[in-house]
Amino acid sequence: MKLAVGPPTCPAEGVGCGEDEWEGEFFPGIPKIKYEGPNSKNHLAFKYYNAEEMILGKKMKDWFRFSVAFWHTFRGTGADPFGAPTKYWPWEDGTNSLAMAKRRMRANFEFIDKLGVDFWCFHDRDIAPDGKTLEETNKNLDEVVALAKELQGSKIHPLWGTSQLFHHPRYMHGAATRYATICSYITLSVTHYLGGENYVFWGGREGYQTLLNTDMEKELDHMARFLQAAVDFKKKIGFNGTLLIEPKPQEPTKHQYDWDAATAANFLRKYGLIDEFKLNIECNHATLSGHSCHHELETARINGLLGNIDANTGDPQTGWDTDQFMTDVAEATMVMLSVIKNGGLAPGGFNFDAKLRRESTDVEDLFIAHIGGMDTMARGLRNAAKLIEDGSLAELVKKRYQSFDSEVGTAIEAGKADFEYLEKKAIEWGEPKVLSGKQELAEMIFQSAL
Amino acid sequence: MKLAVGPPTCPAEGVGCGEDEWEGEFFPGIPKIKYEGPNSKNHLAFKYYNAEEMILGKKMKDWFRFSVAFWHTFRGTGADPFGAPTKYWPWEDGTNSLAMAKRRMRANFEFIDKLGVDFWCFHDRDIAPDGKTLEETNKNLDEVVALAKELQGSKIHPLWGTSQLFHHPRYMHGAATRYATICSYITLSVTHYLGGENYVFWGGREGYQTLLNTDMEKELDHMARFLQAAVDFKKKIGFNGTLLIEPKPQEPTKHQYDWDAATAANFLRKYGLIDEFKLNIECNHATLSGHSCHHELETARINGLLGNIDANTGDPQTGWDTDQFMTDVAEATMVMLSVIKNGGLAPGGFNFDAKLRRESTDVEDLFIAHIGGMDTMARGLRNAAKLIEDGSLAELVKKRYQSFDSEVGTAIEAGKADFEYLEKKAIEWGEPKVLSGKQELAEMIFQSAL
Amino acid sequence: MKLAVGPPTCPAEGVGCGEDEWEGEFFPGIPKIKYEGPNSKNHLAFKYYNAEEMILGKKMKDWFRFSVAFWHTFRGTGADPFGAPTKYWPWEDGTNSLAMAKRRMRANFEFIDKLGVDFWCFHDRDIAPDGKTLEETNKNLDEVVALAKELQGSKIHPLWGTSQLFHHPRYMHGAATRYATICSYITLSVTHYLGGENYVFWGGREGYQTLLNTDMEKELDHMARFLQAAVDFKKKIGFNGTLLIEPKPQEPTKHQYDWDAATAANFLRKYGLIDEFKLNIECNHATLSGHSCHHELETARINGLLGNIDANTGDPQTGWDTDQFMTDVAEATMVMLSVIKNGGLAPGGFNFDAKLRRESTDVEDLFIAHIGGMDTMARGLRNAAKLIEDGSLAELVKKRYQSFDSEVGTAIEAGKADFEYLEKKAIEWGEPKVLSGKQELAEMIFQSAL
Amino acid sequence: MKLAVGPPTCPAEGVGCGEDEWEGEFFPGIPKIKYEGPNSKNHLAFKYYNAEEMILGKKMKDWFRFSVAFWHTFRGTGADPFGAPTKYWPWEDGTNSLAMAKRRMRANFEFIDKLGVDFWCFHDRDIAPDGKTLEETNKNLDEVVALAKELQGSKIHPLWGTSQLFHHPRYMHGAATRYATICSYITLSVTHYLGGENYVFWGGREGYQTLLNTDMEKELDHMARFLQAAVDFKKKIGFNGTLLIEPKPQEPTKHQYDWDAATAANFLRKYGLIDEFKLNIECNHATLSGHSCHHELETARINGLLGNIDANTGDPQTGWDTDQFMTDVAEATMVMLSVIKNGGLAPGGFNFDAKLRRESTDVEDLFIAHIGGMDTMARGLRNAAKLIEDGSLAELVKKRYQSFDSEVGTAIEAGKADFEYLEKKAIEWGEPKVLSGKQELAEMIFQSAL
Repeated sequence: MKLAVGPPTCPAEGVGCGEDEWEGEFFPGIPKIKYEGPNSKNHLAFKYYNAEEMILGKKMKDWFRFSVAFWHTFRGTGADPFGAPTKYWPWEDGTNSLAMAKRRMRANFEFIDKLGVDFWCFHDRDIAPDGKTLEETNKNLDEVVALAKELQGSKIHPLWGTSQLFHHPRYMHGAATRYATICSYITLSVTHYLGGENYVFWGGREGYQTLLNTDMEKELDHMARFLQAAVDFKKKIGFNGTLLIEPKPQEPTKHQYDWDAATAANFLRKYGLIDEFKLNIECNHATLSGHSCHHELETARINGLLGNIDANTGDPQTGWDTDQFMTDVAEATMVMLSVIKNGGLAPGGFNFDAKLRRESTDVEDLFIAHIGGMDTMARGLRNAAKLIEDGSLAELVKKRYQSFDSEVGTAIEAGKADFEYLEKKAIEWGEPKVLSGKQELAEMIFQSAL
Repeated sequence: MKLAVGPPTCPAEGVGCGEDEWEGEFFPGIPKIKYEGPNSKNHLAFKYYNAEEMILGKKMKDWFRFSVAFWHTFRGTGADPFGAPTKYWPWEDGTNSLAMAKRRMRANFEFIDKLGVDFWCFHDRDIAPDGKTLEETNKNLDEVVALAKELQGSKIHPLWGTSQLFHHPRYMHGAATRYATICSYITLSVTHYLGGENYVFWGGREGYQTLLNTDMEKELDHMARFLQAAVDFKKKIGFNGTLLIEPKPQEPTKHQYDWDAATAANFLRKYGLIDEFKLNIECNHATLSGHSCHHELETARINGLLGNIDANTGDPQTGWDTDQFMTDVAEATMVMLSVIKNGGLAPGGFNFDAKLRRESTDVEDLFIAHIGGMDTMARGLRNAAKLIEDGSLAELVKKRYQSFDSEVGTAIEAGKADFEYLEKKAIEWGEPKVLSGKQELAEMIFQSAL
Repeated sequence: MKLAVGPPTCPAEGVGCGEDEWEGEFFPGIPKIKYEGPNSKNHLAFKYYNAEEMILGKKMKDWFRFSVAFWHTFRGTGADPFGAPTKYWPWEDGTNSLAMAKRRMRANFEFIDKLGVDFWCFHDRDIAPDGKTLEETNKNLDEVVALAKELQGSKIHPLWGTSQLFHHPRYMHGAATRYATICSYITLSVTHYLGGENYVFWGGREGYQTLLNTDMEKELDHMARFLQAAVDFKKKIGFNGTLLIEPKPQEPTKHQYDWDAATAANFLRKYGLIDEFKLNIECNHATLSGHSCHHELETARINGLLGNIDANTGDPQTGWDTDQFMTDVAEATMVMLSVIKNGGLAPGGFNFDAKLRRESTDVEDLFIAHIGGMDTMARGLRNAAKLIEDGSLAELVKKRYQSFDSEVGTAIEAGKADFEYLEKKAIEWGEPKVLSGKQELAEMIFQSAL
Repeated sequence: MKLAVGPPTCPAEGVGCGEDEWEGEFFPGIPKIKYEGPNSKNHLAFKYYNAEEMILGKKMKDWFRFSVAFWHTFRGTGADPFGAPTKYWPWEDGTNSLAMAKRRMRANFEFIDKLGVDFWCFHDRDIAPDGKTLEETNKNLDEVVALAKELQGSKIHPLWGTSQLFHHPRYMHGAATRYATICSYITLSVTHYLGGENYVFWGGREGYQTLLNTDMEKELDHMARFLQAAVDFKKKIGFNGTLLIEPKPQEPTKHQYDWDAATAANFLRKYGLIDEFKLNIECNHATLSGHSCHHELETARINGLLGNIDANTGDPQTGWDTDQFMTDVAEATMVMLSVIKNGGLAPGGFNFDAKLRRESTDVEDLFIAHIGGMDTMARGLRNAAKLIEDGSLAELVKKRYQSFDSEVGTAIEAGKADFEYLEKKAIEWGEPKVLSGKQELAEMIFQSAL
């Protein structure tokens, strides 16, 4: 009789426990996921995402450039602030060894292959274990990266890499430090080596818990210097990918410096970095900052900064980042309206920065979640295309601005803007006609496309 | 030349201004709204709501019992805390006269007829003007009510009536006063006279701005006595309709006493009123209180209190009541899952406690908004029926509770729950098996029905 | 040279690492904390809390009955969802061994002694390690509890105990299970044995992540049976302490069933448990549920349910539980106004369910945080007493209700409430006089006491 | 017998109703408000604000430059979205006539004189009534402005003026229109004429209700042109005051373009306006945007944009702008820490953009509210000075950044930042030492000053 009462470290009958080698498939019951159309009842098939289908002159897969997030999919444990890990995948042996890291990487590529995507994203610390010394750590990383390079083949690449600079206690006050610089340089090099197309900075601890002990100006100056150094290094090594900043308002800090797209843009402009970076917009971060995801995408786009999307969603009733797979077709449609206006995202794409719920513990749940997310985005693309082809919504917006006034600007620029002139003109013009905003009609047209 | 610079009181060429009589239709260009199916591009047609169509054994119109809210539709001005009214309907003459009240009531019934619904809801003060004395006020009300009774014919009735006890300064500290009592008695009688099926209490000012100057206990005791009096009066006059309390967390007060469904239920239980009232759940109030609308409906339902729905929605990014027409099909589907579980709402129904945006100023916008709301709810019903007929979601939930433990309860009830017994059993049972919660699969199944 | 790059498991020069015995004091540089008055600049002295001083006829220590939370103070690691532990106290050896548990318990009592409080609170799983079997787990608990009993002496007792039913994966769907029942029975017995005066239920996982896969009614019924069983068991073993439910709106779940005080009260009334439980109100939980802490205390109080306070505070700009020590004197004053109205909290008290910030890593920070929290509460008590002795605020409130209407109630109860009578009376009474609410004056009086 | 049942338009026995002239004082029972020190119980005296007292080398009145907001104090009616006006000041006659405007202006200057401040702020539309034509409107404004100029004397000036561009329906889609331009030019001229020291733009309707019908980029381009025109005009007329933008996140719109300080800064930088504008930070707007007021002030300050403060506060539990007088001494202290770091605000100052609660209807409440607000700010200044003179908090912050790393920057700038070098250095440096953040100590020091 056995009654485990501590947090389990290894499943009782776990096939993988302690093994050095893994034979056969990691996902034995799971086929290659295929498109079966909207009437399919198969949970392991796409109903809306059809990779090769042309939408608005581009293949679906090229609109999305979907990427699997290594950390959530392969390092997510289901732990939360109140609970121990819940996920014990068969291939895990309970260790953070180099052998385990390699086995996990092979699982990753089988997953990518079965899901049918071309990209993945990673943090340095998640794909390879820390060693006892920095040399050993780097050696570990080198070995895993070499394996990843081999497994990638010619078709698969990182959408982006990033350095994980928030977990270790050394980063508890922020990461714009010499140590972080080294890690970032290494990871940038590794991303470049693997053919990565972008590189992301997410400042998990760049912010404050209280202003009482913080010199915000000094920290921002410092962060700018750190990012400038990254720009210089990128150029030196010939990395042509985009550098991305990922706005987030708070959590784990009370305030994070790259609060939202506009805040990040102000920072980049202030420090002369505006031409060197774009933004990686995450939908759940958008809503935590008080904006819709659509708003953040549009703000990034009109500032020339829309580079990549972390395709997830939050819960409208919770005040923290839940990183759920997007399942809201209306939200996905708005996201795709922005992406289409932006002419796509390449070299960026959609990374599933989303995780299984703590309570979802079946291996198939990993596939179901990704399929659900991809299908939701695909419905969004189809709907957005329908709206654009229909044209009614664009027509409604166009009409709204038909009477958009430019006369005053013209008059002023022509130097005629003195009081006498303006009062005279105001009387000539008469009371302005104000048309209905037609919001309910716009919503009806939008809903009809869903 | 004329340049109006103050808030307009009457449209420049307003057909209705100052007229005593109104000839012909109020909505001349608007036909009776018909069901044309999902492919119709006609903004003035239903694409999903088909009144007579049977869904799960009941006509669509009987599932919904849609009601037009007189106050939003006919007294909504578009004013907000920062702005003057924007809506100048042709039939309005800029006065709050009795003649105007009657003309407006005729417009109301033409609207109801063209929209094709069977119910309307009203506040006393919105349908008839205050007089200089209470007698005159009551006389005004009587005249308008008599007209309404005539216009109703045999088919149309109030879904509910209510007394407006928050606008006048006399109610600024709350309305559970003698004055309010009189108004409530009168409106209850009027509702009864018109064949109304429910009566609503919404405590617009029953709450506080600060606890520093408030005796919450005294106020709640008082409110309970007021409601008990209403129960007694209802019985005395033979009104068989349901009395409804409408929870709202705040606004205009900082805190409103009927915060949410559970809070209202606690109040009703504490004061012995639990069998005399049900709840009118408003979706926008639900989200303001930190809950989903679905949650509030379920809470009301399992407390035996689900009586009526104020069918509107809020903006997930704003902290006040926006009273928008519901346009989110997913939310509507969850709402209808609750309604179906409740076996419908009758004698309650769905009242559109929703208003045009301030900027929507065309007469047709009134129709577009209601059509959009009704179609959204109709899609919700169709989807909910699909989910129920498919059965997969119910099956998933059932499986989740299969292992739901009742043994301990049994053991305890049988008096065997001493330590020795329990430890022994725990060892026999072994570590409990915990199955995946399958949230992503549940979401996929749900999304597939949309 | 050594460059640790993984999360440290043991401090490099950690005195305690691997040792079996700990010699001497745990807090060698820290004196017994004394009251030195408001002008003291000593960080390790009380400026406002003077245990034996009489305030409103009671010793300060008897108003508060302060308790140290074992879990935050001795098991808090500084880990957060994005980061590894940061705290490596000298006495920790990096293990969760029984020996370590005992050493930690000795540190706890030295801390309590130096801080000068009489109570502590604990979870079962935090004071003693899990064993490989339930028997071993229970044996571990017995040994640690025996030591705690010895160290308590005659003066110190648990304010309350509780069973930790949320961390282990077995509780991921909730804890109202047979396993939880056993743990609760054991911990209740242990609390009783140690002379604990209350017992708390906090349903960390009693709630849902999505309603789509949840049967809320079934879960609530089950929870009620579980709590009824606890009541029965309490009586059986002769435990006279209060059973407490601790409301929290969400986190880790999207929705927690004991959302706020009113929700918990409704649950207790519905299931006939209202006389068997009181509430443990946590200030940070209050604000997460959309209420002020003062509101939750008043709601508990007027429902006869105010039993204990988890004295912490949140950050007004974050949407999760930050569990900070209270430092807001105004909030503390409002809290104490409620406590005084309640006639104190005994057998409950104030438990510091509060933790050091992740970045606070000095041993002295543990003392500074508690001293700050106790001084803030003490200022609150002194201010509340000043307000009460001054009487102006009470006078202002009294005046506000002077005109509070009871006539209608009387009339109605006397059966005179027919229309004719009421209309006649309304005309006699005339338009009601409405007095100023004097909120700004109330705020001025309140502020003057701070 | 008289029972008013409609919203009152004039107080029953209102002394002022319909009168053409007002004899004697407007505030007959109210003396000149004097400083009486913290022990005073006089509600009509300052306990902390002592205008001429020197604090950190400057008179209190020069630190604050307090201003009365004409609109809240003299045009605030107590109306809210659910209720009619509640305030019927004796001098009001229920009209919006020119005569009434002048009488009101005289009341304003008596109020200013009795309160003992040197500044006031106004909107054009609030001080003078609209006429039937633009000429008449301007003539009305001229007359009232001439009176204000006379009443100001030599000592009193506008802290700022602004044009009210959100109330009239013509602005419902936003105000960056030709009509708004004219109004802004006129008001800017008027502000200049009255000796105003700043001019504010608050874009009440510059934002959107839904992105579905909005071209955000076009609107922002347009707004930038409008503001550039204002800059040109200001220079042309020789107005040397500061132009201020007032960030607000939302309300009445769902999204306002000048969301917060960082968003406004990004806008100003993008359109080359960064040197021409500063920001008017409002505390209640700060918290609505998810930031503390302190955060917004610091963000403005380090971007060189801190120009003025709208000294009010919100309710932490409500999601709309409550515009309350500040009563939180801790918040006031943080505000003053920023102001002192900024070297004061001149030519800006503190404008009380705050209003009486709807329920506060006594004339004396106007004074009590302002006195409470001024005393709170004065306590904030005294506390901030104490903190600065004590120096412990500054010392704590300084220590925290002592180890602030600049070596990597130096190395990189010197061109030595290749991998080999960096890895070598990292090994030399060893694991970084991370000191405690001492947040609790910082909070204790801060609290001690209150």
